[in-house]
Amino acid sequence: MQRDAGAQQLDSPSAEAYLGRALKRVVRDGVRDQVAIEEPLEIRVAGQPLAVTMRTPGNDEELAAGFLYGEGLIDAAPSLAPTRDLAANTIELDGPLLHEPSARRFYATSSCGVCGKGALEEVAVHAPAVAAGPEVTRELLAELPERLSQPAFERTGGVHATGLFDPFGQLIAAREDVGRHNAMDKVIGWALLAGELPLQGRILCVSGRLSFELVQKAAVAGAPILVGVGAPSSLAIELAAAQQITLAGFARRGGVNIYTDAGRVESPPSP
Amino acid sequence: MQRDAGAQQLDSPSAEAYLGRALKRVVRDGVRDQVAIEEPLEIRVAGQPLAVTMRTPGNDEELAAGFLYGEGLIDAAPSLAPTRDLAANTIELDGPLLHEPSARRFYATSSCGVCGKGALEEVAVHAPAVAAGPEVTRELLAELPERLSQPAFERTGGVHATGLFDPFGQLIAAREDVGRHNAMDKVIGWALLAGELPLQGRILCVSGRLSFELVQKAAVAGAPILVGVGAPSSLAIELAAAQQITLAGFARRGGVNIYTDAGRVESPPSP
Repeated sequence: MQRDAGAQQLDSPSAEAYLGRALKRVVRDGVRDQVAIEEPLEIRVAGQPLAVTMRTPGNDEELAAGFLYGEGLIDAAPSLAPTRDLAANTIELDGPLLHEPSARRFYATSSCGVCGKGALEEVAVHAPAVAAGPEVTRELLAELPERLSQPAFERTGGVHATGLFDPFGQLIAAREDVGRHNAMDKVIGWALLAGELPLQGRILCVSGRLSFELVQKAAVAGAPILVGVGAPSSLAIELAAAQQITLAGFARRGGVNIYTDAGRVESPPSP
Repeated sequence: MQRDAGAQQLDSPSAEAYLGRALKRVVRDGVRDQVAIEEPLEIRVAGQPLAVTMRTPGNDEELAAGFLYGEGLIDAAPSLAPTRDLAANTIELDGPLLHEPSARRFYATSSCGVCGKGALEEVAVHAPAVAAGPEVTRELLAELPERLSQPAFERTGGVHATGLFDPFGQLIAAREDVGRHNAMDKVIGWALLAGELPLQGRILCVSGRLSFELVQKAAVAGAPILVGVGAPSSLAIELAAAQQITLAGFARRGGVNIYTDAGRVESPPSP
């Protein structure tokens, strides 16, 4: 699969521009410090406001595209709408949508894409069947968080990250955001715009906990393996099991817990 | 101020019942483990569905009341609607609401109460002026996370917590949830139902990062001090400054960063 030259971004020469948009200098306790920027983004489609999310500026087109894809509202890369005099923190994409969002209860925020879907069944409608494989070792899964480049986190401690890896643990793309669901949306949006969806044979890795919504986004994007530094929720495990996704949590300090295997983890469980 | 006997809850004899509702036993890697339950809750008011949030079961009435209060939709304790044959994971409160929620773009999820308000100005409409004081030491603020009882976190590592403290660092109430905004809503809902709002002279402490929405909820509840274990976002700091709230982050290992003081922190900033 071809690799987009700008995919990793965070290690690229544009890293400085990225940090310039994502970070704000503050004075606290009389000393200079940096914090992650949080600002609302209104996502509009074909002239209509659709959702507002609190996000860290940067990669807004990816964020909007990934969000809409995860919701099952688009299935191909949208184009930016013809430039109009949009308000700040607004992005507008061309339509049409695959279905009318207002027909479902539709809620979006800083760190959550969707609620109220009747959960598991709803996801199955939009998620492709996940292929068997790839086979990976526990050791590889445990190492992925350390390979996740997080320049804004290193400076602020205040953002989440999502990384897309190949089965050999090579980082393909990474994105950060104050909202963990936004970081996932940005990575999936990047993949959509780069023609890399579905994420067959790929691994998604998140810097935090594994909620239902994160598994949902991974499922709709077709990712077979999702790894997190934090704990999974009950519904995250149930959804991963239903969708045949390998779900791994607490990936830290050389260890990892496997909650749903689906035949992809090579070595036996640790005792 | 009178203390509700059941306020702390997590240390009370009902702790076992609480954990029984909040945790689920799973098998992972061939061993028994526990994870935090995540399930949707539909909040209905006077027969109409208003919002759906992914939450950890337990204290649903507090969650619904705190959520509606934080949104400026109620200003007094609501009562549960007369029992009807409600679906599972549904709670219904009596109306009426102070204003029509659909008139604003209104989004709710697992870990975020509100977005798209036009941010700071909107909060000022609903937030009471915060009184001066209380005066506290940096040392006290730094210690609060350790005093936050987190029984479900200890067993799962998978939930956030919010605690309400008096200015001497005594824990008044604590709640946990997979969604950090839900944990805050539950504490504020408890305070609303117990007649303890506004939270004048009190301190709120959260186990995670300090987002705009968490400061917003603290502001609307009238809390003068908000402390978090994690980093604040840019907008969280701006809102705290605008509302004269003392915002402290990175409260861990005996240290704490003060981002907005408002004259409440006694000792001078560390060099």
